[in-house]
Amino acid sequence: MSGEGIKENCGVFGVWNHPDAARLVYLGLYALQHRGEESAGIVSTDGEKLFIHKGLGLVSDVFKTDEDLKPLVGRAAIGHVRYSTTGSTLLKNAQPLLFDYSHGKVAIGHNGNITNAKRLRDELEAYGAIFQTTTDSEIIIHLMAKPSYRNRLEGLTQALERVEGAYTLVLLTESEMIGVRDPLGFRPLVLGRVGKSHVLASETCALDLIEAEFVREIEPGEVVVINDKGIESRYPFGRSQEGPQAFCLFEHIYFSRPDSRVFGKTVLIVRERLGEELAREHPVEADVVIPIPDSGNSAALGFSRVSGIPVQDGVIRNHYVGRTFIQPSQLVRDLKVKIKLNPVREVLEGRRVVVVDDSIVRGTTCKQRIQSLRKAGAKEIHMRVSCPPHKNPCYYGIDFPDRAQLLAANKNLDEIRKFLDADSIGYLSIEGALRAAGHPPSKYCTACWTGKYPTTIREGVDKFSMEILRTL
Amino acid sequence: MSGEGIKENCGVFGVWNHPDAARLVYLGLYALQHRGEESAGIVSTDGEKLFIHKGLGLVSDVFKTDEDLKPLVGRAAIGHVRYSTTGSTLLKNAQPLLFDYSHGKVAIGHNGNITNAKRLRDELEAYGAIFQTTTDSEIIIHLMAKPSYRNRLEGLTQALERVEGAYTLVLLTESEMIGVRDPLGFRPLVLGRVGKSHVLASETCALDLIEAEFVREIEPGEVVVINDKGIESRYPFGRSQEGPQAFCLFEHIYFSRPDSRVFGKTVLIVRERLGEELAREHPVEADVVIPIPDSGNSAALGFSRVSGIPVQDGVIRNHYVGRTFIQPSQLVRDLKVKIKLNPVREVLEGRRVVVVDDSIVRGTTCKQRIQSLRKAGAKEIHMRVSCPPHKNPCYYGIDFPDRAQLLAANKNLDEIRKFLDADSIGYLSIEGALRAAGHPPSKYCTACWTGKYPTTIREGVDKFSMEILRTL
Amino acid sequence: MSGEGIKENCGVFGVWNHPDAARLVYLGLYALQHRGEESAGIVSTDGEKLFIHKGLGLVSDVFKTDEDLKPLVGRAAIGHVRYSTTGSTLLKNAQPLLFDYSHGKVAIGHNGNITNAKRLRDELEAYGAIFQTTTDSEIIIHLMAKPSYRNRLEGLTQALERVEGAYTLVLLTESEMIGVRDPLGFRPLVLGRVGKSHVLASETCALDLIEAEFVREIEPGEVVVINDKGIESRYPFGRSQEGPQAFCLFEHIYFSRPDSRVFGKTVLIVRERLGEELAREHPVEADVVIPIPDSGNSAALGFSRVSGIPVQDGVIRNHYVGRTFIQPSQLVRDLKVKIKLNPVREVLEGRRVVVVDDSIVRGTTCKQRIQSLRKAGAKEIHMRVSCPPHKNPCYYGIDFPDRAQLLAANKNLDEIRKFLDADSIGYLSIEGALRAAGHPPSKYCTACWTGKYPTTIREGVDKFSMEILRTL
Amino acid sequence: MSGEGIKENCGVFGVWNHPDAARLVYLGLYALQHRGEESAGIVSTDGEKLFIHKGLGLVSDVFKTDEDLKPLVGRAAIGHVRYSTTGSTLLKNAQPLLFDYSHGKVAIGHNGNITNAKRLRDELEAYGAIFQTTTDSEIIIHLMAKPSYRNRLEGLTQALERVEGAYTLVLLTESEMIGVRDPLGFRPLVLGRVGKSHVLASETCALDLIEAEFVREIEPGEVVVINDKGIESRYPFGRSQEGPQAFCLFEHIYFSRPDSRVFGKTVLIVRERLGEELAREHPVEADVVIPIPDSGNSAALGFSRVSGIPVQDGVIRNHYVGRTFIQPSQLVRDLKVKIKLNPVREVLEGRRVVVVDDSIVRGTTCKQRIQSLRKAGAKEIHMRVSCPPHKNPCYYGIDFPDRAQLLAANKNLDEIRKFLDADSIGYLSIEGALRAAGHPPSKYCTACWTGKYPTTIREGVDKFSMEILRTL
Repeated sequence: MSGEGIKENCGVFGVWNHPDAARLVYLGLYALQHRGEESAGIVSTDGEKLFIHKGLGLVSDVFKTDEDLKPLVGRAAIGHVRYSTTGSTLLKNAQPLLFDYSHGKVAIGHNGNITNAKRLRDELEAYGAIFQTTTDSEIIIHLMAKPSYRNRLEGLTQALERVEGAYTLVLLTESEMIGVRDPLGFRPLVLGRVGKSHVLASETCALDLIEAEFVREIEPGEVVVINDKGIESRYPFGRSQEGPQAFCLFEHIYFSRPDSRVFGKTVLIVRERLGEELAREHPVEADVVIPIPDSGNSAALGFSRVSGIPVQDGVIRNHYVGRTFIQPSQLVRDLKVKIKLNPVREVLEGRRVVVVDDSIVRGTTCKQRIQSLRKAGAKEIHMRVSCPPHKNPCYYGIDFPDRAQLLAANKNLDEIRKFLDADSIGYLSIEGALRAAGHPPSKYCTACWTGKYPTTIREGVDKFSMEILRTL
Repeated sequence: MSGEGIKENCGVFGVWNHPDAARLVYLGLYALQHRGEESAGIVSTDGEKLFIHKGLGLVSDVFKTDEDLKPLVGRAAIGHVRYSTTGSTLLKNAQPLLFDYSHGKVAIGHNGNITNAKRLRDELEAYGAIFQTTTDSEIIIHLMAKPSYRNRLEGLTQALERVEGAYTLVLLTESEMIGVRDPLGFRPLVLGRVGKSHVLASETCALDLIEAEFVREIEPGEVVVINDKGIESRYPFGRSQEGPQAFCLFEHIYFSRPDSRVFGKTVLIVRERLGEELAREHPVEADVVIPIPDSGNSAALGFSRVSGIPVQDGVIRNHYVGRTFIQPSQLVRDLKVKIKLNPVREVLEGRRVVVVDDSIVRGTTCKQRIQSLRKAGAKEIHMRVSCPPHKNPCYYGIDFPDRAQLLAANKNLDEIRKFLDADSIGYLSIEGALRAAGHPPSKYCTACWTGKYPTTIREGVDKFSMEILRTL
Repeated sequence: MSGEGIKENCGVFGVWNHPDAARLVYLGLYALQHRGEESAGIVSTDGEKLFIHKGLGLVSDVFKTDEDLKPLVGRAAIGHVRYSTTGSTLLKNAQPLLFDYSHGKVAIGHNGNITNAKRLRDELEAYGAIFQTTTDSEIIIHLMAKPSYRNRLEGLTQALERVEGAYTLVLLTESEMIGVRDPLGFRPLVLGRVGKSHVLASETCALDLIEAEFVREIEPGEVVVINDKGIESRYPFGRSQEGPQAFCLFEHIYFSRPDSRVFGKTVLIVRERLGEELAREHPVEADVVIPIPDSGNSAALGFSRVSGIPVQDGVIRNHYVGRTFIQPSQLVRDLKVKIKLNPVREVLEGRRVVVVDDSIVRGTTCKQRIQSLRKAGAKEIHMRVSCPPHKNPCYYGIDFPDRAQLLAANKNLDEIRKFLDADSIGYLSIEGALRAAGHPPSKYCTACWTGKYPTTIREGVDKFSMEILRTL
Repeated sequence: MSGEGIKENCGVFGVWNHPDAARLVYLGLYALQHRGEESAGIVSTDGEKLFIHKGLGLVSDVFKTDEDLKPLVGRAAIGHVRYSTTGSTLLKNAQPLLFDYSHGKVAIGHNGNITNAKRLRDELEAYGAIFQTTTDSEIIIHLMAKPSYRNRLEGLTQALERVEGAYTLVLLTESEMIGVRDPLGFRPLVLGRVGKSHVLASETCALDLIEAEFVREIEPGEVVVINDKGIESRYPFGRSQEGPQAFCLFEHIYFSRPDSRVFGKTVLIVRERLGEELAREHPVEADVVIPIPDSGNSAALGFSRVSGIPVQDGVIRNHYVGRTFIQPSQLVRDLKVKIKLNPVREVLEGRRVVVVDDSIVRGTTCKQRIQSLRKAGAKEIHMRVSCPPHKNPCYYGIDFPDRAQLLAANKNLDEIRKFLDADSIGYLSIEGALRAAGHPPSKYCTACWTGKYPTTIREGVDKFSMEILRTL
């Protein structure tokens, strides 16, 4: 699936009360780079002013030398990495965004997607608001800035009442850092501690890098306020851990780093279990299990463990891919697929191969890959996918293609197998996926497979809204 | 005076109805580069969307290759060059600014300074406005966006009623380009035409470059609306060319390019006349007149013409200065002054020299220059300044230093002479300056010399306001 | 071992008779990037002139856009990637080098190390030669340029008679492409074909990317001349495949890409066998086998297969490492180790862990890694190294540290175990390594383990020579 | 003439015995930037090693930050700025060049052109020499490296015996700095002193910037050796100041900075005198004298002084030209001419104008300029050129176009006038030029006007040689 360009929206990170706050945030973003490769930014505060540096590209592109970190003085900072539709003009959408309003200054970093964005924006504009970005975050700040609110926190909680969808936020003002997770908890957010400093991070792998200890997850619906007096939590939507939630299973399957604990489970272990469930659901006679690296590695190990078929690295990843690449027009067929992964003839030749991938979205990359495996001599190819078939768009921050382009939304299983030219195909069942994930089914969002969205999606309005925002 | 860092705010340029609009704007900005070296930007429209590219640095830094212009499609575009306090984080203040509000999208480029900015900003924030830049322009758009206005033009004219100070604006929407000059006409703005295209420009030198013909100046208080139906003017403040105006004389003395017509006069000719007046007011026995290049060149020719003393290029300008320069700490005394202008010993040695400069602000550069002329052998040095003494800050867009740093605000003529170590000194009188400028005295702002500000300046409030905005 | 900075000298690639030769070389270098990250270059010819583009950095840094490839016209081209001591001034050492001499122009790319370089250089200088680089390649061209040789080929073969050590060369003139492998065949070089074009490459993975078929290896001691008449081989040193050779086993263990066939064996399969041998030689009771990615992956699979202990990805590699990174002084201990690989607590906690790494050189990185595994909860740590202990420097192109810094040169096995703080340690035996490699032992260089160098090394002279060259 | 791309070869600068030698060289090159805009470089020595940094572009492009100067340690350094045929691959020709040979290391910077370069190169190649650049300097070092010479200095003086043409050299070894001026003294070279440091510079303006005092010119045929024992001169060609020399008059007319003393005369004063002679030789009835800036400025003042016709700045130079510029295809006619210089209508309209330019080479730029002056309203245009007509190529370092493109080589005076569409034209006579220059006529090279070359030029051989070298 890698190579099909599924993109998550963002990663967030924040540090309160550390003499080298911005530098820690830089490291945190480095560890969260996989959550957003298109822009990066940090806002810091010295208690009086806010300082910002952001730009398009990887963390290492935006922060090249010490000079880029130097202006970010102060003992608190937040940072953000982001995917976005490309285009040099979209620097304005890079986060964190920094605003000045009646209650002072505020910076915001956002992971997720607000499903009633268009409606809120129209309403705000009708009241005289002007917009300079096309991000959801600007809407939240406008809602916060209503003159009737007595302070920032009241503004924030009132704003949250208005927005629908998925949002994990970190905010920074001159005097506090705030973490927010939406009531259904779509996206992860964890609290850490290093010495006397508090840390907020999308994933625990970022805590590991700065040697912060993991304290706990921010709960769905929790607003955590960190300032010099300490740390305090609010639950503007009430606090019921018992009710249904909407953890995004795709965080486990694909997005999060395997070494992170997400929704209370280590990603790598969940992936191994996905592979194990897959082997139980779709057994096959074969000579070798090969993973599609890197996201399929753990599932392949799980599949091998249960099936007893040995694993070999039958396709090798080029570690330099991702850097600039001059497109050589028509010289080499399917170069984009080939330059990323090269099949190993000696592993494949004359053998019955189980290919374990984490997902199939459009199917075009998968089809090319199967072709290249056949060309390298594979006798039989059995596709095993450690995830159920994708049939519906995600409105909560994952940029799946339109339904028209989703392979499983338009073909039945046998048609898929024929399209891919596989000898057999097996998708993990939704039940299998949920079993591997570990929490009760009511805790997860399965909308992309089932079409059952955990929040009201006003079709025809809000889908339109996303497109508008996307192309603005 | 060059070398003392006096800075104007900006230059603006716009083209309506040309297949290559953005490219013409690029050329126009190239010609207006002297009005702002710190950022540059262009917004274009294809009638449906607005496209933007801007960045920090010179026009040639921001627009490096055709690739930078390509996204700026459409038959209309506006552009802006700007001075601003430096800092990589201030990209957000680069103009044009681009906004989305209830009446659609609007881009704005601004030259000047709004003197009640802080007050308006506080008021807007109290009503829930959020700010992302520290520019005046954002205030204007907020004022325009009030929900009660029926359309953009009503919004704009209502907004103009609220703002005080100096503002020359170009605005671009999907369907029109608008030029605005404040009622007192502090800063220049001209209308040109090339084929069937309308052009707005800060100075005529930008029309020359794109081979547009000069049509007329935009009048003080005029709002000119250019769209596919043609060109139409409004006068929200009434239209009286008879009343007092406030043309900035410093445009003639220093800012504008000598080949531009500004306020109806060719700058170069005004400068020659300033030199002639100066020679009449402050005659001296001497062997040679030397200009401080390049801004003193024409005044020196005028001085020579009236005095009969021959001109020679006694100091030579290094044309590469302005580019990056590694500061060599303590190696060479006064390197900054020296690297820009080198005295020519053979011209100076043993001679009585009249030095013609366009202005003295702090006096430190002038003092160093006189020292270097003495060191190169000059026997007598007679400073002649083609401008009256600066004693007051400008609130209308010129970044003079504070009164405490203005040489003439704190010393009498003889003290100045002693401070500079000149053998004699002569400043042009205000009357002389006005005579050279050509229009009746009531047409000009002379506040920096006289302290008589043509608009109400609420001291203690609005000065504070500027500082706030500057350091925000 | 990755992280200890062992560096190979180079990778080479060449294409003859293709309309898009330079572009294919670009792709070839992209596939060979792992053989040299510090400079890259291409020389092409149109039959009359030679064209060059090279620079410091990755292939993607040096060739950023089509514009960089455009000047490289013609139907033949060679390219080179290189490791070198860093320093912006060392661009002059980037290859290919391009020379003009009595027989015309010649470009050269070199992989390996000439052990009598200093002596040859002194001799050449004594005859009036001047040197502009500190590379071996310049010496070869000087030797070729002796006026007595009748043509380039005679010059080349005569030059090869003088040089000692390891050298794989590709040369390009206006009329031919030449590939050379030294008589002992230290470094790999293969011949491929795509349509009517001949290809030379350090590894087969570069053939795969451009869809060239593998024809055969260039033999040790072979000089293959490719021109418009076809392809012809010479054997200036005679042709005996039977005699001893000196294939570098470290190509299999570490340097070459796992998907390449090197010295007739698929690297990945050799690595699996190294792991299998290792498991047989050093069995252990444990719960989990974890590889040090990526070079330890295949050996870990082999170890697991023989031992029956399951593999898990207990340390996770950050794929963004390698890019620019701002060093955060003292903030985080062992950041360099940690940012590259993060241990996964849930895999390690309370478990007896077999760690499979491909080699230990200095030992410092390994020691830190073991610490971090313990900190993540590992109960027992059993180091298993799929390579014998390194005790001697390599003079043939691998930049091992001095003997004083080689862990195994200065400590016995138990001291090593203590130094690393491992619960047990097992290195693969030389016999085991040779068994896994597959050819008879007489075919391999084992000098870095045994100290038996396959060519005469004049200690005290030639070691000094390398240092001289290194610091010149 | 500016705009017609006449290019000098280079500027050189060197400092011996200063704690901040490289930084002073950086400043010196900054002051000499006008002598070469295409590459810049510095080599320094700490007495043991030589350090180099060079690159393509302006001094400010190659030396961007302190980091670029830091590696250039030591108390001695030389630098070079250069014009060259463009092309990213020609970095190898950037100077200084750095060589290693039997007598140690040597760096060389060269201004001028060796007329028997091709012959020497062929000869050297026949003896086994290999070449890596296409510069003359490499030939000199090859000649120096002959094994029979006992030391560097003997090598250098023997090498100089073989080379013909124009060469001003600075060389640096670990133990000395050497300055060389060819026996006819085509190009300038001066000696300066700052504290206890010796300085070599192409022009005195570079001494001024670093506050070094001017000591004397290096004499034609002098080899000055500066080391820790002091400064010593040699005259390998004998020392006769009385004989004929070949100072390049074009240094005064165009190349050198007006504030430099060159060949014992201040350039600015010579230019004024050229204008005075011109006014005497070609008087005209007119209203205004306008210079083509900046090189025509002083001649225009001289013309005005003698003729009594007032000077005005009728064309204004855009100071930002020279920076990157996106070529706007066909939008604006003659944009290249126009963007550089803009005519001022009010100065020109209805007036009889004397245009003073320093030279006319191809005539195309001049023709376009006259057109634009007419378009701006000039009634009559009288071209006055402060230099005789160019009819012959220069083989001594000035890159004039081929004879076929030299306007005056192919047209008589009246044809030139018609071609340019001037109302009258007057070139300064050779006698007039020599009178203004000040030394006896036997001291100057006038080959570009008279065709009498001061050294033997083997036509058909050496012209070919230059072309070969140029296109290599």
